[in-house]
Amino acid sequence: DVTLINLFEVPPGREAETLEAWGAARTFLSGEPGYIDTTLHRALDPEARYTFINVAHWESAEDFTRAIRRMHAAGVFPQIEGVVINPALYRAMRRDGAE
Amino acid sequence: DVTLINLFEVPPGREAETLEAWGAARTFLSGEPGYIDTTLHRALDPEARYTFINVAHWESAEDFTRAIRRMHAAGVFPQIEGVVINPALYRAMRRDGAE
Repeated sequence: DVTLINLFEVPPGREAETLEAWGAARTFLSGEPGYIDTTLHRALDPEARYTFINVAHWESAEDFTRAIRRMHAAGVFPQIEGVVINPALYRAMRRDGAE
Repeated sequence: DVTLINLFEVPPGREAETLEAWGAARTFLSGEPGYIDTTLHRALDPEARYTFINVAHWESAEDFTRAIRRMHAAGVFPQIEGVVINPALYRAMRRDGAE
């Protein structure tokens, strides 16, 4: 599988809107083929560059790309003023620890 | 628990050194109180801004901060020319999916 790591730059005061849009996107994407799971993280430091980081798992890069295209076509994840998203696909290389 | 997400900016040709340093850091940190697990991810796109992203879990922010201080004191994670690390602590907010 592949890991989607999306870094959210969110100006002060836009957190609630961003969370709402993220929730709508998750609802749409979780119904798409190849979706596995997703976890949204919030920075402990309010000054952090990336206020939210989403880490999601998909069966394949193709599944993810197709689902995102369908999501945008359905207009589910609106652009929010000042919010910059930085999605990129990764592959887990080294895993270690108590799992 | 808390999630450490560390974003690695790695100039071309420095990947192997960075992986070696990451491996040494993981060996040190995995022996520290409060360590849970860690997963290193590599970008599928070689042009990605962050070549590696490490996602680790710790019992608490204090455990993590103490362990990092001890690691640097032991000189385990040397500075590699051109490599920029961007560590920040997060808390998982929303979890969803097949788990």
